Amino acid sequence: MTDVMKAIVQTTEGDPEALEIQEVPKPQLQPGEVLVKVAASGVNRADLSQAQGNYPPPKGGSEIIGLECAGEIADTGDTDRSVGEKVGALLVGGGYAEYVAVPEGQLLPIPEGWSFAETAAVVETACTVWSNIVMEVGLKKGETILIHGGGGGIGLMATQIAKALGATVAVTAGSAGKLEVCQKYGADILINYKEQDFAEELKNKCDVILDIVGGPYLKKNMFALAEGGRMVTIGLQGGNKAEINMGVMMMKGIPLHGTTLRRRSLEVKAEIVRQTIENVWPMLEDGRVKHHIHEVLPLAQASTALKHLVDSTHTGKLVLEQ
Amino acid sequence: MTDVMKAIVQTTEGDPEALEIQEVPKPQLQPGEVLVKVAASGVNRADLSQAQGNYPPPKGGSEIIGLECAGEIADTGDTDRSVGEKVGALLVGGGYAEYVAVPEGQLLPIPEGWSFAETAAVVETACTVWSNIVMEVGLKKGETILIHGGGGGIGLMATQIAKALGATVAVTAGSAGKLEVCQKYGADILINYKEQDFAEELKNKCDVILDIVGGPYLKKNMFALAEGGRMVTIGLQGGNKAEINMGVMMMKGIPLHGTTLRRRSLEVKAEIVRQTIENVWPMLEDGRVKHHIHEVLPLAQASTALKHLVDSTHTGKLVLEQ
Ligand SMILES: NC(=O)c1ccc[n+]([C@@H]2O[C@H](COP(=O)([O-])OP(=O)(O)OC[C@H]3O[C@@H](n4cnc5c(N)ncnc54)[C@H](OP(=O)(O)O)[C@@H]3O)[C@@H](O)[C@H]2O)c1
Ligand SMILES: NC(=O)c1ccc[n+]([C@@H]2O[C@H](COP(=O)([O-])OP(=O)(O)OC[C@H]3O[C@@H](n4cnc5c(N)ncnc54)[C@H](OP(=O)(O)O)[C@@H]3O)[C@@H](O)[C@H]2O)c1
Repeated sequence: MTDVMKAIVQTTEGDPEALEIQEVPKPQLQPGEVLVKVAASGVNRADLSQAQGNYPPPKGGSEIIGLECAGEIADTGDTDRSVGEKVGALLVGGGYAEYVAVPEGQLLPIPEGWSFAETAAVVETACTVWSNIVMEVGLKKGETILIHGGGGGIGLMATQIAKALGATVAVTAGSAGKLEVCQKYGADILINYKEQDFAEELKNKCDVILDIVGGPYLKKNMFALAEGGRMVTIGLQGGNKAEINMGVMMMKGIPLHGTTLRRRSLEVKAEIVRQTIENVWPMLEDGRVKHHIHEVLPLAQASTALKHLVDSTHTGKLVLEQ
Repeated sequence: MTDVMKAIVQTTEGDPEALEIQEVPKPQLQPGEVLVKVAASGVNRADLSQAQGNYPPPKGGSEIIGLECAGEIADTGDTDRSVGEKVGALLVGGGYAEYVAVPEGQLLPIPEGWSFAETAAVVETACTVWSNIVMEVGLKKGETILIHGGGGGIGLMATQIAKALGATVAVTAGSAGKLEVCQKYGADILINYKEQDFAEELKNKCDVILDIVGGPYLKKNMFALAEGGRMVTIGLQGGNKAEINMGVMMMKGIPLHGTTLRRRSLEVKAEIVRQTIENVWPMLEDGRVKHHIHEVLPLAQASTALKHLVDSTHTGKLVLEQ
């Protein structure tokens, strides 16, 4: 094997359109890591933030964009894996490339009958959704969950997992088209946030909220939470600042959580992946949870993929293939 | 038995000095309740808020002040308890009286060798502290907890329980005298909040914060929390409003909780009491957790007791005896 590989490199800092394929050094394996030859990479909104210069990789992480992929193990490092094993992988970066180094705890099997592209389209959302709605805030059967951005990659995954868990699902989205897709994937209550006030519709009714908007929705989310409800914020698409009335938090007994999967420790990530394989992979294999790929593009068109996110014209996931 | 009893009645709404003993109807027992003849009642800061008109009792609750007491069962209602049984009791109200009706799930035994006054001085704080630092935010051995208001009734109880659990305890208080008492009860790190900035002293170090200040401390508390730390707010002595940066919450992964014991359901209260008996009562009986009674006053002097809270000249608990 040569020491170089192809990868997406940003030629102008902060410009998501300035992405092109170049030759870069192959990643060096750390103890406990395997080298994966990437066949397909999932596209996430965080990739756009990173390309815009707003979401730098954690210290020591790859500068290359890309939080998830699927492919074959090309080098097993010091692990007991096998060369040629087909895997999905949760990454802190480096997915938009020919090869990526992956801690063994972040490998997932390919679900029975799924392609690389399909697998790359669900790893990040499955791990994010499971770790947040179950591990972080304990969604239970019979509860009502409000999922903001129901038509996004996270939103469709969250809707399906929540339904599989026996919850009632309310979603927000900005168009009738996206809401229709949400309904197809199981959403029970559809709210067009451009036309309706979700807080009025769901006043005191939500046991769990999965939030991606942040500041501008905080007061409304607290209004929509039932007594004993829990919220977890994983995105700040509307901004990070808000005024909070802590009296409401106390009187209703509503804990507010916030997490970023990428910043979790190796141990926590491995546990999240373990639980995701145990709980979500069977849902993928028996069809309770489906992927929803908006479009598969060649890796060289990474800029075009990110442009879809800027315009928010997509529903579900974008995938880059090699 | 006659149908009337003595109780503290407020003669001018909103005036904590206008409290006097009057004859009022004895409480009627609901299914599952026993009648306790009160020997001693603990005084809590919420009693002051209620007397000031800021903390009305929940619907259906007694209008009489008082969240905890100790005494003897005078009427067993439909329960299997015995008349004459000595008990402590967690109340939603009604403690400043000769008799009070108590759901059976909110009765606690008198710790071995403890008096009524001593028991009445620990019921509310023990249940509040256990339910929050353990049940709500899971304080673990080896972790660091910051306890605001370390010299108060809650503060001294929280310090001792946290030490018994094997945590490192930091406290804030407003005077050297109170900090000295905190140290005597086990606090490891003493911060005079009038002279030092706790957030600078404890930057990124706190795994758990037990907060009673609210709005004005929110930003500082989030600064003091370690990654993965958890905060629970149970008092708003500084006010309820704050600006929050949700990005910090996400990046550090720090859930913010808020609770009020009085508003919890009967079932949750019973579970809190059960766990408190199981976990804290042994600590009381073997001396790991001690009461700290500032002063015992006759019930008729309820106003004087509340005056101490206004002036904040007390350390630990005030108790009213009959
Ligand atoms: N913290 C973590 O660990 C983590 C992990 C993964 C993802 N995330 C975050 O989760 C969010 C969703 O990610 P994604 O990959 O699903 O992105 P996505 O596919 O672009 O979906 C985002 C969706 O949000 C909708 N939206 C925008 N503003 C909204 C508002 N005010 N109310 C309701 N919906 C709104 C958009 O729909 P419309 O066009 O209808 O507005 C879009 O469908 C992003 O912010 C991402 O950064 C966080
Ligand atoms: N949510 C619930 O379920 C629940 C249950 C019980 C109690 N509580 C609340 O918990 C709080 C404490 O109750 P308590 O009975 O322990 O009252 P307490 O005995 O009056 O103690 C309160 C302590 O707070 C200190 N303090 C005031 N401002 C402070 C500040 N800015 N920073 C640090 N310390 C400060 C005071 O000390 P200095 O004189 O030194 O300032 C005082 O010692 C109250 O707000 C009460 O309402 C809530």
